[in-house]
Amino acid sequence: MTHTLASTRNVQLASEVLKQRFGERFLTGDSIREQHAHTLTYLRNQPPDAVVYAENSSDVALIVEICAEHNCPVIPFGTGSSLEGQLNAPEGGVSIDMSQMNEVVEIHPEDLTVTVQPGITRKALNSYLRDTGLFFPIDPGADASIGGMASTRASGTNAVRYGTMKDNVLGVRAVMADGREIKTASRARKTAAGYDLTRLLVGSEGTLGVITEVTLKLHGLPESVAGGICNFPDISSACQAAIQTIQYGIPIARIELLDPVQVAACNAYSKLNLAEKPTVFVEFHGSDASTAEQSAMFGEIVSDCGGSDFQWTSDEEKRSKLWQARHDAYWAARGLRPSAEAIVTDACVPISQLAACVEQTCQDIKEHNLLAPIVGHVGDGNFHTSVLVDMNSESELLEAKQFAERLSHRAISMGGTCTGEHGIGQGKKAYLREELGDTVDFMATIKAAMDPGNIMNPGKIF
Amino acid sequence: MTHTLASTRNVQLASEVLKQRFGERFLTGDSIREQHAHTLTYLRNQPPDAVVYAENSSDVALIVEICAEHNCPVIPFGTGSSLEGQLNAPEGGVSIDMSQMNEVVEIHPEDLTVTVQPGITRKALNSYLRDTGLFFPIDPGADASIGGMASTRASGTNAVRYGTMKDNVLGVRAVMADGREIKTASRARKTAAGYDLTRLLVGSEGTLGVITEVTLKLHGLPESVAGGICNFPDISSACQAAIQTIQYGIPIARIELLDPVQVAACNAYSKLNLAEKPTVFVEFHGSDASTAEQSAMFGEIVSDCGGSDFQWTSDEEKRSKLWQARHDAYWAARGLRPSAEAIVTDACVPISQLAACVEQTCQDIKEHNLLAPIVGHVGDGNFHTSVLVDMNSESELLEAKQFAERLSHRAISMGGTCTGEHGIGQGKKAYLREELGDTVDFMATIKAAMDPGNIMNPGKIF
Repeated sequence: MTHTLASTRNVQLASEVLKQRFGERFLTGDSIREQHAHTLTYLRNQPPDAVVYAENSSDVALIVEICAEHNCPVIPFGTGSSLEGQLNAPEGGVSIDMSQMNEVVEIHPEDLTVTVQPGITRKALNSYLRDTGLFFPIDPGADASIGGMASTRASGTNAVRYGTMKDNVLGVRAVMADGREIKTASRARKTAAGYDLTRLLVGSEGTLGVITEVTLKLHGLPESVAGGICNFPDISSACQAAIQTIQYGIPIARIELLDPVQVAACNAYSKLNLAEKPTVFVEFHGSDASTAEQSAMFGEIVSDCGGSDFQWTSDEEKRSKLWQARHDAYWAARGLRPSAEAIVTDACVPISQLAACVEQTCQDIKEHNLLAPIVGHVGDGNFHTSVLVDMNSESELLEAKQFAERLSHRAISMGGTCTGEHGIGQGKKAYLREELGDTVDFMATIKAAMDPGNIMNPGKIF
Repeated sequence: MTHTLASTRNVQLASEVLKQRFGERFLTGDSIREQHAHTLTYLRNQPPDAVVYAENSSDVALIVEICAEHNCPVIPFGTGSSLEGQLNAPEGGVSIDMSQMNEVVEIHPEDLTVTVQPGITRKALNSYLRDTGLFFPIDPGADASIGGMASTRASGTNAVRYGTMKDNVLGVRAVMADGREIKTASRARKTAAGYDLTRLLVGSEGTLGVITEVTLKLHGLPESVAGGICNFPDISSACQAAIQTIQYGIPIARIELLDPVQVAACNAYSKLNLAEKPTVFVEFHGSDASTAEQSAMFGEIVSDCGGSDFQWTSDEEKRSKLWQARHDAYWAARGLRPSAEAIVTDACVPISQLAACVEQTCQDIKEHNLLAPIVGHVGDGNFHTSVLVDMNSESELLEAKQFAERLSHRAISMGGTCTGEHGIGQGKKAYLREELGDTVDFMATIKAAMDPGNIMNPGKIF
């Protein structure tokens, strides 16, 4: 750990008080601390000094108050699936484990809203919702906690239709740096009541407050779901098909691109025999008639763009098998080099730039002799690469870091962002400045005003 | 004007410098000053001391720098259609008229984005877009400027389908209180890059910065538009139809409720002969098949809820006539008492509470013997009342104020907000605190940090 003697002393003082107050819910064992800093980047694991399990928002407020008094960093933890070092403790401090705050607080089916504690995972929430005819669509892949998804402004495969966490969080409760709990908004679907603190907290990565409750928009389960797959001679024509789909206003629910390397990985892992070409998975939600219409329109676009015959099905079993392969893309990528780990990064560009950005990235991968499959939420101009590296090789880690850096530069130079959905964390601080310039000063001004002691997840974003 | 001698002196000093720099674009005539404080509330007109016409963002930066140096308030002005006193100058100061900054900066049809200067109006923008197959859907009624719409987080009739300004602004440029211009986001459709300053500025009513450029999401013009009208025996069944429409996931583009008083007003003004019952106007966007399907599904819901026969048409002339009546609702309301003016207020509640909230509001209107038609964006739980008052009668003004206060209390007590789309301005400051409690302190903290001299539209929101 890199934190100074002074801050170590602060952490010790806070820990003593926390231990007294939380007893067995306050833990300092090595393995639990390491687990709570789990991170999928080139960044090293930087464990917190202790972990406290919160059971309710009063616990959270008390923890924050104690930590504030002793200037001890506080790092909120959901399920540990963030990707840019959001959970590392570079200055030490206390991880607040929110996983036991996993209740549904209230559901209002007529309003299509649900209020949950932050530790509930998206799959647990959707299990809870099963009999209501409603669902919560945001799907970042991992079974992340709703609090973590809000904190990192998560999105995923069906953001193209349903939006991101920004669009689906109606309001939050959060414990701020002075220990006060606030609620950012009413349950109304629209509001013009003052500053949008909901959206300020969504995506703030725990640096402004600890989210203790989230009110979400829900959506009606579609009557009919249809899906299909097709491939294209090159990345450019696959992207062109996505652009036209969006432009024609087809309300596509998912449109995912896999590059040939990823397709090969999925073939091996999921026992498929897809042609190893740029491949697009799609899904349509609606009535029977509307999904049929959407599928037919998409088929025409695919054909216009030189893609393969587009076959679609509303048969659930067939669709599930395909989408399972898409969901397992990360594990499939890992399977390409079982001894290695995947360092995942993402970028997002205006969709008109997507083909160029993905093609140049493929070229970059080839030139630098990396193994790095690409998958993309292509309807949003967002894509990921998983660079497979030997975590014990400093040179491979450096290569992965430099690749992520080039990808960020590329996306920014094309009018895009260094991260579409993973966040800044520790990994992308330099690129944030490159992307937004002086705007970062105003973000820092807000941070300093709302958390003058800099105890809320310090060392992230800035 | 109520501002102190000290601030008057500051304004004078700033004005001298501004006059030197801007010459004929710096104006102090009574009528131009009064025009720039136009406001549709019980609040009195509080004109600025001067008006400066900005031609580009360097002008805006210079004006803000000069005003910052002399602690002189700065009030951005678009078209003057805000409703809660956002343009009043309670502490004096300079109104920056943005109407000449009305250019389209760049359009990217493939990305469905357009970047505009803030002074362009929504109708001018849609005229510009006419040949692109794209449109900008947000329609607050008035032909407001895009900058003003962003600043007040405007929405309107088709927010139920296309969202509000919060959802349709991808990023802004803004001159901050220190004169620096920032851009809040790239042109990518999704971002996880740091704090969401876009959404912090959207809805901040000019209190954090002056918006100098707005990048908007565009939408494809629907292939087919269908619309219709129906009435219900009571408010409750009309609201129930709206709830079911949303719950079934029908992607309705507009669903507007008029109470019997408003229907009577529209009959008189627009020469219609609608039954004077709670009436719902709807519109569907999509393909021919999908609008037909949506219309049929909606018709079934209307029938289930005890509504009248639902007739729909995709004939543009018939639809336009109906919607023109809806758009003219404000003028129709004014026609009920030509000597009076309309004091417009809005509230927004979870949709399950809408029937109760509207019914109690009708009851309130009756009990207090007010003339106050109601129209509602019922798919969002948002509705407006226009209280017709003699502006020279202090007692009528007080009655209108007290009515708005009761409406705010009612909406807040039902889990809603004191304003769905008009903003806080001067008129609703007390209710903001009632609605969100300590959260307002954190809003004020942000305000103080970003505008330490409190020169940006002071006296609003807080």
